[in-house]
Parts: sequence; structure tokens; C-alpha cells
Amino acid sequence: MIGREWKKRTHHCGSLRIEDVGRDVVLNGWVQKRRDHGGVIFIDLRDVSGLVQVVFNPEISAAAHEVAGELRGEYVISCRGTVGARPADSVNPRLATGEVEVRVEEADVISASLTPPFEIQEGSDVDEALRFRYRFLDMRRRDQLEPLILRSRVAVTVRNFLDSRGFLEIETPMLTKSTPEGARDFVVPSRLQPGKFYALPQSPQLFKQLLMIAGIDRYYQIARCFRDEDMRADRQLEFTQIDLEMSFIEPEDLIAIMDAMFVDLFRRVMSVELSDPFPQISWQEAMEAYGTDRPDPRWGMEIDDFSSIFSATDFKLFRSILEEKGRVRGFKVDGLIAPARRELDSLVSEAQRLGAGGLVWMVREGDSLRSPVAKFLSQGETDALIEKAAMVEGEVFLLAAGPGDLNPVLAGLRQYCIKNFAPQPAEAWALLWVIDFPLFDWDENEKRYKSNHHPFTSPSRRTLELLDDDPLQVTSDSYDMVLNGVEIGGGSIRIHDPELQDRIFKILGLGEQEVEEKFGFLIEAFRYGAPPHGGIAYGLDRLAMLMAGKDSIRDVIAFPKTQSGLDLMTAAPDIISQAQLKELRIRST
Amino acid sequence: MIGREWKKRTHHCGSLRIEDVGRDVVLNGWVQKRRDHGGVIFIDLRDVSGLVQVVFNPEISAAAHEVAGELRGEYVISCRGTVGARPADSVNPRLATGEVEVRVEEADVISASLTPPFEIQEGSDVDEALRFRYRFLDMRRRDQLEPLILRSRVAVTVRNFLDSRGFLEIETPMLTKSTPEGARDFVVPSRLQPGKFYALPQSPQLFKQLLMIAGIDRYYQIARCFRDEDMRADRQLEFTQIDLEMSFIEPEDLIAIMDAMFVDLFRRVMSVELSDPFPQISWQEAMEAYGTDRPDPRWGMEIDDFSSIFSATDFKLFRSILEEKGRVRGFKVDGLIAPARRELDSLVSEAQRLGAGGLVWMVREGDSLRSPVAKFLSQGETDALIEKAAMVEGEVFLLAAGPGDLNPVLAGLRQYCIKNFAPQPAEAWALLWVIDFPLFDWDENEKRYKSNHHPFTSPSRRTLELLDDDPLQVTSDSYDMVLNGVEIGGGSIRIHDPELQDRIFKILGLGEQEVEEKFGFLIEAFRYGAPPHGGIAYGLDRLAMLMAGKDSIRDVIAFPKTQSGLDLMTAAPDIISQAQLKELRIRST
Repeated sequence: MIGREWKKRTHHCGSLRIEDVGRDVVLNGWVQKRRDHGGVIFIDLRDVSGLVQVVFNPEISAAAHEVAGELRGEYVISCRGTVGARPADSVNPRLATGEVEVRVEEADVISASLTPPFEIQEGSDVDEALRFRYRFLDMRRRDQLEPLILRSRVAVTVRNFLDSRGFLEIETPMLTKSTPEGARDFVVPSRLQPGKFYALPQSPQLFKQLLMIAGIDRYYQIARCFRDEDMRADRQLEFTQIDLEMSFIEPEDLIAIMDAMFVDLFRRVMSVELSDPFPQISWQEAMEAYGTDRPDPRWGMEIDDFSSIFSATDFKLFRSILEEKGRVRGFKVDGLIAPARRELDSLVSEAQRLGAGGLVWMVREGDSLRSPVAKFLSQGETDALIEKAAMVEGEVFLLAAGPGDLNPVLAGLRQYCIKNFAPQPAEAWALLWVIDFPLFDWDENEKRYKSNHHPFTSPSRRTLELLDDDPLQVTSDSYDMVLNGVEIGGGSIRIHDPELQDRIFKILGLGEQEVEEKFGFLIEAFRYGAPPHGGIAYGLDRLAMLMAGKDSIRDVIAFPKTQSGLDLMTAAPDIISQAQLKELRIRST
Repeated sequence: MIGREWKKRTHHCGSLRIEDVGRDVVLNGWVQKRRDHGGVIFIDLRDVSGLVQVVFNPEISAAAHEVAGELRGEYVISCRGTVGARPADSVNPRLATGEVEVRVEEADVISASLTPPFEIQEGSDVDEALRFRYRFLDMRRRDQLEPLILRSRVAVTVRNFLDSRGFLEIETPMLTKSTPEGARDFVVPSRLQPGKFYALPQSPQLFKQLLMIAGIDRYYQIARCFRDEDMRADRQLEFTQIDLEMSFIEPEDLIAIMDAMFVDLFRRVMSVELSDPFPQISWQEAMEAYGTDRPDPRWGMEIDDFSSIFSATDFKLFRSILEEKGRVRGFKVDGLIAPARRELDSLVSEAQRLGAGGLVWMVREGDSLRSPVAKFLSQGETDALIEKAAMVEGEVFLLAAGPGDLNPVLAGLRQYCIKNFAPQPAEAWALLWVIDFPLFDWDENEKRYKSNHHPFTSPSRRTLELLDDDPLQVTSDSYDMVLNGVEIGGGSIRIHDPELQDRIFKILGLGEQEVEEKFGFLIEAFRYGAPPHGGIAYGLDRLAMLMAGKDSIRDVIAFPKTQSGLDLMTAAPDIISQAQLKELRIRST
């Protein structure tokens, strides 16, 4: 077929409608399916816009019909014909082009195809390794293409929004220095500076702060970032951030702009009207009410503290826990009424799987509670529980107690209940902010404070006075955005005062030399008139995944890598030549 | 100043106009200049939007005046005051805010500043190494900021244009496999696959072709690319491409869309109306008329062939050259009339510098020519030269002759004349396409054919039949875009037929194993129904540089590296720890 001529399309396959009947059209596309109905050949022709049925009738064109006879799945063809209305009994209401067909008068094969290693069909279940090996075929499936289209729209929409708000898109270096993000860097040997290495950025954090010091005022970038981590479920070695930074702001300024950005994004991309401002919940409240800093409030099931009900209990287990300054916390299960024994058992085993010593379930039956511990409770305690939890007949209530951290168990159980019992939520999308994170965490292994976000995060002014005496009580001017229980972005106001930054480094136990080596240039920059500034970074992969309704970020990445960092299509990474290694002055060991 | 409160701005400095007189405003910005006029202190306050004069009058506020007394250059302040009209004699017409000033009632220092290592002043001449070391200060200068603003606008405008034409933005991997672009790859050692390396992409070429095979139809990306080259003048190790690819097209389809994109780009970003279609000139014509494949047609001075005039000449030098199948070519110098001897001498030495054996100049004086070779020319030859070159009295005409390649000399001389003699061109911007490049070049050293673009470039259909017998006569479906004599982009229709691709690889002397290793996955993909496709890539750095009227791409890059690949601010590249090397299983040698 070398150099063979072909007719260029006049229309896209998926664009034809009943209004086009009578038109002479040329289509270019792939053979999705071919049916030979004794003489007349029907083909579903596919391009990026969708499918349309094209009909090869030997009475219309014997030559075209002959071409159609040779066609197999995934052949690329060009065909010219007339749009006709399908007979009423063959209209396909599930197809946008289902009312029409193209009656072919001329056809050419542009490219032939081998038989694909799997069916190019939406929704067909194909081994992921095979899909990745033949990703160029996998993406031909509509359900693989759609998330990429959505991702592209997200990027364009976000950029235009930020541009309209005066943000400048600025590219920061990829061949750079280690960033203090905590994960392992990818490094790139420098040939011109033998023995030295660039690091690929884990984020543009330091550069965007420098841009603020440079007076850029508002910066954004959709930036590729890199972390050489052992890949747990659904991570990629390279990922993409929507990254931005602003000067002369406080948290509410950034939050208001981001609220508007997400309203705009969901309106333009999803045709969904969100209403802003999105709720803000402090980290402390989130941990109390949801057991996690990534709450999904679409289901109620808020966790409450029931300790006070048991302040004088005869129930020994609870009493001893409370005496140890432990707590009794729990929540009412949505959507589970008059449960079967096996449902209650499943809750207990889930709690055990989550590491709980035990779980107390209770079902309201009239004025009493069915529960393994019912006999230990006074009527007063029973009444108080029913009232505080607002239980109606048959409803289930779960209690966990302990001196230890109950949050992982309670949050996990809540998730389990959402997945297994709860009805569909009224709202499909819940966006919220978690704010006022602690500035530091205590690392019990290393016996030292660590930054909850990163060391440039500003303490909030109202807790600043606690910095020396009670660092764990200091909150930060930080904020995470959570979409449907998944953290999609996080950021903070940064420290812009070199003295304050010094104090934070000291609390973190970072030595002067370490600070100087790692980010001396940033600290130096602070001494030349730094504006107050702050920003946020969103994980584009995860955001697009949620918006596309997918379960894995691999579904919104054109060429994803496997868990072990392999590109199964190109076979990267690969060995390199001795000559290359020699030129770079490195050797594999 | 830790935790000190400051008032947030209500306005940008550069936004205030005479209409704002009477307004109460808060400004946040940097102290550009401070003048103490005996009692009243004037400050030029700067933010991203520009400058405004703020006045601290002790009679308005003694406290604010006291704050102003402490201020030094680059301090960051917040001040509140009233916009007033400047007295008529102190209006500054060169400043957008020059009719107003802000009379300050309250002021706070937000951040102090050390004395900057150079003056933060537009146009001041600062050593580049010092600028790069303190790039966060350098960018505070308006002439450094403007190109970054322009670059951001170019990126947004191009993306929106492509989005509106149905292109999908798709991110291709950064951790990938060597691409066959000919330059040296940067490599990244893989920790998870010891002994193996990723390559950073030199371009997304293979991936965008795979996207076409995947049915994506129209792709674009503003993509970071990497080449580990010894940096000649004005290259960077990492650079940015506007990269796109389309399916089911021929060259004219792509060219028409790009014409429209550049009209849109110049209209929106430069307020310049270009008229499309832009001229197309074949590679052969460009080499003939301009001696280069990057012609700048804003000045005429087209080169012509004068060999025929000398077909029977008595001038021995020309005769012997013509007998050796050499040629006599030359052009008339624009803007040089009745030249001085030293001007003519400068042309001769420039020709020698460019490697010419000699240069013949001629000046029309009545019906004769003043020239060192005048005495060797017949009146008929003289008349023919004057007529063919359309010389008027006093005009200068240059001739070079030789059996060798005259193009470098003629193109170089033409550039020299443009720079030294030619008047300003009528048009500030000349965009054109160079098309029909040869498919192959002959590498005299390696005695083999090489691709003029890259091995995936499609031969043009009309010369395809010469592929086996006369490969150097085969032209390709390729196109470069040239802006004011600088190549800003290049691309081609790609081969989509695996058999044709095989033939090209054979002509290039690429063995089967080499092909399989380097891009076997692409060749395999061609066998599953590849659409005709083609694309182009523009150098964003260079395009932004030209549009910003700058001489170096370093001026349109926020954090450029030096010629030896150093980031003087962060000191990247840097040594890495033994532990890191060990984990990566590499060693420096």
C-alpha cells in the first residue's frame, strides 16, 4: 500500500445525525466490527468521535463491496458515500449516530491490521499487563479514551481559570537540586560535571517560593514531578501536579480562589453545579467526627464521643478504659436496619482486621438495646445512648473504646459501612477543606519533631506563642482539599521571615550546615525582601481519576508504568551501552 | 517581624490612574527607590503590575513618615493612603501611574532586605553570572519580568487555539526509553531495576506517533525535552517544545492550521495582524535565493545565478570556474549607494571570513561598473549584469563564483549586508514555510545516507519512485516554519506503512536488530492499522525569545543554566551521598 492515495474525511464518524441524511461524506477510520449479511456488508467504523454504521451494498458499488470483503478488525479505511436514514427496525438508540448509516460508493484500505491480541471493545476485561504492552490498541477503546479526554479538559479549564485570575504560567527546572520533600530523588548523572548529579524535582516547591520572592505575585504550572518510591497501590514514579503560589495573601484568599476554580471546573467539565464556599473543617474536628483528615461527609455517620455516658458505669471494660484516660466513641450505621447476625459479625471482623481489640454493636429494639454487652448497661445508660445517637427502631450503633488511637478503626469501619450498607448519597460530589493542621508531628522512633506538611509551612499567628513551650499544640496555616474522601490537594502559607524559619529548623533538629546545603539559596533569598506567600498543589492524576469515575490513576495516564516501574510497551528502563556509562563516568555495581 | 500583622492590598501599584483620585487604597510592594525631600519622603513602590509613587508626609502621618525613614531598597511594605493627583510639574508621562501618587496614612514593614548585590533597575548592565546567582532579584527587574509574562501568554494562547481545534493535551512519559533524535540522552538510573536506566525524552516523537496509532486523532503538549549536548551559544540542556500531531492529513492540512494558530497568536499576544497563508518556499528555492533553508525575506536581496552571462567570457577566473561546472551567483546590496572604499573592503573581508576564495564587488557608474574586475568584462557582460540585477546608479552588486558550495558565503554576506547597510524592513515579522526538504543527506565521512529530518519522515509521493535509484533526489513531506530568518519549528508527515518504513531503514543502513531494539514497539504498532499522520514541534524558548525581542533564550527562561549546565542559584548539579549511590547500584569512576 506504499504511497497509495486515499480520500480525506469530510466528517467525523461520530458526528453524523439524522439531519445529515442525503449528504455526500467521506469518512476515515478503523473497522470496529464487520457483519456480512449475505451480500450486504455492514461495518461499524470508528474514529476519535465515535462509531457509525457504514453499509457496503454490491448494488450501490460492486468495487466498494469487494474492498469490504477484505476488511478485518482494525483495518484503517477511507470511504465515501451518502448518509441515509436507517430503517425504523434497525435504529440503534444507544448510539449517537444510531439513526443513520452511510451507504458506501467508494472505499480504500489505508492500512491493514494484524489480529489484535485482545478485543478492541469497550468494557471487555483484559489483563492489565497485556493492555499496557499494547497500550496503543488499549486506548482505542472508548472507555480508555474518555478519561484522557476528560483529563485534557481538566488541564485546559484549570489553566484558563488561573490565567484569568492573573496567574503566570512559569516553567521551573527539571534538572535541578534535591527538594526537601522527604521521598527518594531520581538523579541524573551530569556528563559536563563528572561525579555530580541533577535531581528530578519531587515538586516545584522551592522554585515557586523563589518566584514569589522574585515578585511574580501569582504563579501556576501543571508540573511533572518524580518520586523514587517503592510503589504501593496506585502510585506512579512520575506524576503531575497542578501547582500554584500567590503573594500577599492569607489562607482565606487562596481558599476563595480555589473554591471558584473548582466551581468553574465542575461546571465546564462535568456540567455539575457545586456551591461554594466549600465547607471548612479543622483537622481536629475532622479527626473527631470522621477519624481521618480526609473525611467524606456525603454520608452522615459522624463519630461522636460517648465517654460521658459511661462516667459512672458498672461495665468494667469501659470503666477501666475511661480510668486510663481512654475514650468511648462510636457512630450509627446508615442503611442498616434490623441487621442479620452475619452482618453484625462482619462488622466485628472488619474491626479486628483494622486492629481493634473489639467492637461493640448495639441494635435498638424498643427501649432496649440488643448487644453482646447489653446486660452490663444500666437503663439510664441505654436511654442516654439511644437519645444521643438518635437511634430509631432497628438501627445499628457501633462503639469502640480504648486508651489508644481509635481513629483508624472508626474511620475504617465507617468506610466499610459506607461501602456495604449505606444508600447512595444525595450528592455525588463532596468537596471540603481541612484546615489548621498541626505544624509538627512527634516521631516516636526518631524522638524528634517532624513537619506535618513541610518545613516552610507557616505556623498560624494565634498559636505562634506556643512554639517554644508546646510545639505540638501549634497549628499551621495549611489546608487540604478533599474530594469524596480523597485528598486531592494540599498547601499552606509559607514562612517568609528568615528568623522564624530559623526557629522552625531548630525545632526540627536541622543543623545549620544541613540547612545551608539543602536550601541555603532559599534562606538567602528570604533576606532580600520576601513577601508573605502561600500556595497549593493538586494531584492531577488523582483528580482526573475521581472525575472520570475510575479506580486507578493508571486509567487517566496515557502511558503508565507498572508497580515495578516498567513501561511494558517500550521496555524502559533498559540497559545502556558501556560507551554511554563511560562518558557519564559511572559504573553499575 | 515574626507574626507581625500587615494590611492586605486593595489595589495593584501599577493599576492606579487619575480616575482613582480620592480613593482609599492599600498597596503591598517593594521599595524601588526612596527620596527624602527634606521632610517629605517619596518612594517608588513596585509590584508585579508596575510602579507608583507613594508619599510620606509627616503632616499627614508622623508614624508612617517614621516607618518610611527606616525603609531601604527592596524592603517589602504595606501602606494605606489616599490617591492624589500629582502637581502638574511633577507628572511623569513615562509612567502609566505618572499622574497620581498615594499619600500614605499608615505603613508597615513586612520584610526587610539586605542591600542587593546589583541595582534592581530595568536595563542596568549586570554580569550574567551574578544575575543567575541571584535570579530571584534579577526577575524583579521589569525587563526580565516582561519576557516571562509574554511566554506565559504564548503558552496559554497556543493551548487554547489547539484545544479549540480539537487537539487533546496528552502527557507523555519523562522516564522513558532513548528516542532516536541523534543527540545524547540524559539517563536516570532505576533503583527498582538495578543496572537499567530510563532516558529523559529528547522529544515526544515516538509517543505522539503511538497516540495517532491509538486513534487519538489530534494531540498536543507543551513538553519539556532534554539533550545532553555540549552547549554551544544559546542552548539549554532542557528546553520546551510545542508539540503536536494529527491523523488523516496531508501537509497542507497541518500548514493551514498552523497558519491560523500563528495569526491568532500574534493577534492576541502582540496585537499584530499577520496575513495568512504564509508563503511557502521549497528547500531548493530557498537555497538558491537565500543560500539558506532559514530565509529572512523581509529584505529583498535575493541571490540570483549569473553564470549564463559569462558563458563565453574572456574573464579567465570565471571561465575556468564555469568549465569546472561551477557557478557565478550574487545579489545586489540594499541600502548601500555610492559606497566608500572601506565599506567595499569590509565586504571582501567578511567574504574571506566566511571562507570564500574571493568576492567580486561592482558599483554602477553610468553604463559602466566600478569593480576590481571591470577591465576583464566586455560591455555586453556589463550591460547584461546591470540589466539582470536591475542596478541603478551607485548601487552595489556582489558576485561569488566557484565550483564549491557558494551558499554559506552568500547567505553570510547577505546577513552582513542586512545588519550593516539595509534599511529597516517594511514588515517587522516575516513568517514562512520551507517545504520539500530532501529526504536524505549524504554523509561524506560515514559514506552513508542520513535522514534529513528523522527516519520516520515520509517521502513525498511524487518522488517515491526514485527511492531505490536516486535517493538524494527524493524529497520528503516535511516543513519548517521560519520566523525572521530563525527556524522556530519543523515537522513532517510520517510514514505509516511498515513496509515503506523498512525500506527507509535499509537505505539508512539500520540493521534489523538495531531497529528492533531502538523502536521495535513503534514498528510493531504500525502493523495494527496505522492512520496517515504528521505533526510539528516548535521551540517555545526560541519563539518567545523572538517575540520578546530578546537575543538569548536565557531571557525567556525563569531559571536558566549556564553553558556548562550549572544552575548558579541552587548549585545543581551536586554530589550525592554514598548511600544514594549504593541504593542505585552505581559508582562514579
